[in-house]
Amino acid sequence: MNTHDYIEKNKERFLEELKDLLRIPSVSADPKYKEDVFRAGEFIKTKLEEAGADKVELCQTAGYPIVYGEKIIDASLPTVLVYGHYDVQPPDPLELWETPPFEPTVRDEKIYARGACDDKGQMYMHVKAFEAMMKTDTLPCNVKFMIEGEEEVGSDNLGIFVQNNKEKLAADVILISDTGMIANDIPSVTVGLRGLSYVEVEVTGPNRDLHSGLYGGAVPNPINVLCDMIASLKDEDDRITVDNFYDDVAEVSAEERAEMAKAPFSLEEYKNSIGLKDVEGEKGYSTLERASIRPTLDVNGIWGGYTGEGAKTVIASKAYAKISMRLVPNQDSETITKLFKKHFEKIAPDSVSVVVKPHHGGEPIVTPTNSQAYQAASFAYKQTFDKDPIPMRGGGSIPIVAMFKSELGIDSILMGFGLDSDAIHSPNEHYGLFNFYKGINTIPHFFFQYTKIYKPELV
Amino acid sequence: MNTHDYIEKNKERFLEELKDLLRIPSVSADPKYKEDVFRAGEFIKTKLEEAGADKVELCQTAGYPIVYGEKIIDASLPTVLVYGHYDVQPPDPLELWETPPFEPTVRDEKIYARGACDDKGQMYMHVKAFEAMMKTDTLPCNVKFMIEGEEEVGSDNLGIFVQNNKEKLAADVILISDTGMIANDIPSVTVGLRGLSYVEVEVTGPNRDLHSGLYGGAVPNPINVLCDMIASLKDEDDRITVDNFYDDVAEVSAEERAEMAKAPFSLEEYKNSIGLKDVEGEKGYSTLERASIRPTLDVNGIWGGYTGEGAKTVIASKAYAKISMRLVPNQDSETITKLFKKHFEKIAPDSVSVVVKPHHGGEPIVTPTNSQAYQAASFAYKQTFDKDPIPMRGGGSIPIVAMFKSELGIDSILMGFGLDSDAIHSPNEHYGLFNFYKGINTIPHFFFQYTKIYKPELV
Repeated sequence: MNTHDYIEKNKERFLEELKDLLRIPSVSADPKYKEDVFRAGEFIKTKLEEAGADKVELCQTAGYPIVYGEKIIDASLPTVLVYGHYDVQPPDPLELWETPPFEPTVRDEKIYARGACDDKGQMYMHVKAFEAMMKTDTLPCNVKFMIEGEEEVGSDNLGIFVQNNKEKLAADVILISDTGMIANDIPSVTVGLRGLSYVEVEVTGPNRDLHSGLYGGAVPNPINVLCDMIASLKDEDDRITVDNFYDDVAEVSAEERAEMAKAPFSLEEYKNSIGLKDVEGEKGYSTLERASIRPTLDVNGIWGGYTGEGAKTVIASKAYAKISMRLVPNQDSETITKLFKKHFEKIAPDSVSVVVKPHHGGEPIVTPTNSQAYQAASFAYKQTFDKDPIPMRGGGSIPIVAMFKSELGIDSILMGFGLDSDAIHSPNEHYGLFNFYKGINTIPHFFFQYTKIYKPELV
Repeated sequence: MNTHDYIEKNKERFLEELKDLLRIPSVSADPKYKEDVFRAGEFIKTKLEEAGADKVELCQTAGYPIVYGEKIIDASLPTVLVYGHYDVQPPDPLELWETPPFEPTVRDEKIYARGACDDKGQMYMHVKAFEAMMKTDTLPCNVKFMIEGEEEVGSDNLGIFVQNNKEKLAADVILISDTGMIANDIPSVTVGLRGLSYVEVEVTGPNRDLHSGLYGGAVPNPINVLCDMIASLKDEDDRITVDNFYDDVAEVSAEERAEMAKAPFSLEEYKNSIGLKDVEGEKGYSTLERASIRPTLDVNGIWGGYTGEGAKTVIASKAYAKISMRLVPNQDSETITKLFKKHFEKIAPDSVSVVVKPHHGGEPIVTPTNSQAYQAASFAYKQTFDKDPIPMRGGGSIPIVAMFKSELGIDSILMGFGLDSDAIHSPNEHYGLFNFYKGINTIPHFFFQYTKIYKPELV
């Protein structure tokens, strides 16, 4: 039986297994799901073993374990290191889910669940493609798996693991499916990702909550102050005002921008798909450019004071916000975090105190389109989609891609099969069955072609 | 036995009864406490009956009942209508309470509990002063009680009750203890209160939560937009920018401001008492003026996006805030609410939609210092504090005071025994035992003197 027949024959089981994985609420950001995150790691370990991987283990870290497994068939053949993650984003706001986030449900040929696309659905394609190649005896090269459980909280322990296991992880290319493509009939390969600086800020006014009648008008209200400060972080052109923020931004050439502008994109469809009356963003750039080649600043959460039902006339002691900045080449996340902290402390009025706490960060990357891996990926998409993929720069961040390059010296190839409309990080996250199976079928083509054209000196 | 000996003899029991009342979590803003709010009304009804009131009843409303009771001893004598409330503010944030909010605890001669001062402690002084006068046969005039359960949520049903029961509530003066005094050795009578306009706003950007990597920089983030809008509601001088907001504000004369400035006040002590590095407020006014004779705008609560532990890279679909404005004569709460709504809708960018939902409002008042009631109150304080009280304008709002005047034509006298430091509406609300007992002892003096100097034609 050939690889693709095997996939066709087992497709129902593959989906059932994905559902089992999606039932595990492996939310790494929230300690209350701790046992579940460990359970998801165990699940992947078992499935890699069943698929035929050797030396499968849960590599312990200070946080959640990294699942490692490998199949080395011939040292002279190339080695593909597959990266993915088994943790997921928090599911809230729960009330907006049509079906519960951890009870996977298929509707309209899509599977709905937290992690359906990001990244359980996409990561599991690799486990199943590997199984198909193993069971049909068609694996053309060496493969290693490194599936982590802390991607959604910054991959801190993965960095340490990589530093300490450079030999174990030696490979020619890293293969990742954790991004999207333009549309189901327009395959694409992600050749750029934004970096990330994520901070939490706390503004303190009075040392206790106060009655807004007795004190209102006479004391600094930390919520009002926080709003003032946040409002001042962008100017009228939606440019970020943090001192020196743009210093290291690599401007994209007019030629490259013209090339990008050729990608199929309808602003009307974009607005309709997310129910927007109008878009906004940095002056002088298109929507696609704002979401890929330009840095951003967004408040991801804000809270303070009374948020229950009805009215409470209180002046809160503290107000909080989570603020993230997406970065582009050649911005550095640590530098930006420091610049933000300095700026935020500077603009705080004397009447309040502020604390800026850095969360995780990550570096922006741009990958070449003339590499062997890109050519193999392009070939693979052509086999299954009957079209050459379009190279595109994504707006999201996979901080580990830059880390792999700097620590291991290995480039990544980003073969994402998700869609922007998959609602990752949102209620009703889903993943098309078309995309799931297309991924499983495209991956072996990549392995075959990469092995075929592989020239070690040119990697 | 005279009235004050009776009070002295029963003081321990009075405190125990107050504790019983404080154990009932009668939070009117939160439907989950519904049964408890009703229970607090029953408690007051029973205690009024035990004290000797006639015709005690729970007057049903569309919300929580109003406890009514009376003692009419002679139609030719004056009638004092006592108003108070048995509902309390929500207790959160719970984690900041040193002892649980509904387990009253005496520490350092103060009783700690939600409602200890506002208003259970102060309202219950009247029930016990009445009991003392009844049991010692010294009640000098007629008295009526009207104790409601919706003060903390806007007293909507009290307004309807008052309109429908003008004869039943006929009186010469309304006596209220729901304000504060300057210090335990500086008694004061509140002669002005601010009004209130309270709204909840909702800003909607995209129709679902979005991934901040994929969409960040290209779409309106409702939290950022809300912060921008809130920031724009005050100018650099902390003047409120809502169109026409100050049109009806009665400017206080230089003479009156000079008189106010004589009240004992230490800015250093004020700042220290609430842990502030610096105060802020409308340019051109002192701290005391900002908190009494000037209108304000404060955000009482804000929320949106991810507020859990860790980091979530989300652009929220919606952001919310609760915003209140304190009003001064001759501002009108309905007018201000309308002006706010119009202004807020006007300043919203085209890319988002906003909803402004009015909560309750109330009118500002100023009461005369040359009335019989003021003179009687002044005399009463002199008896128990050995000092004349200072007339002062308060920053809080008791919207029903203006409503009583307009509906019943009766002025109120505000004999408050609380302190600004009592942390009403805050964690660790408390009430001094000194203040509780001083109130019970001062109230009968008011009744005696008011009856003595009463001249019906001069009321």
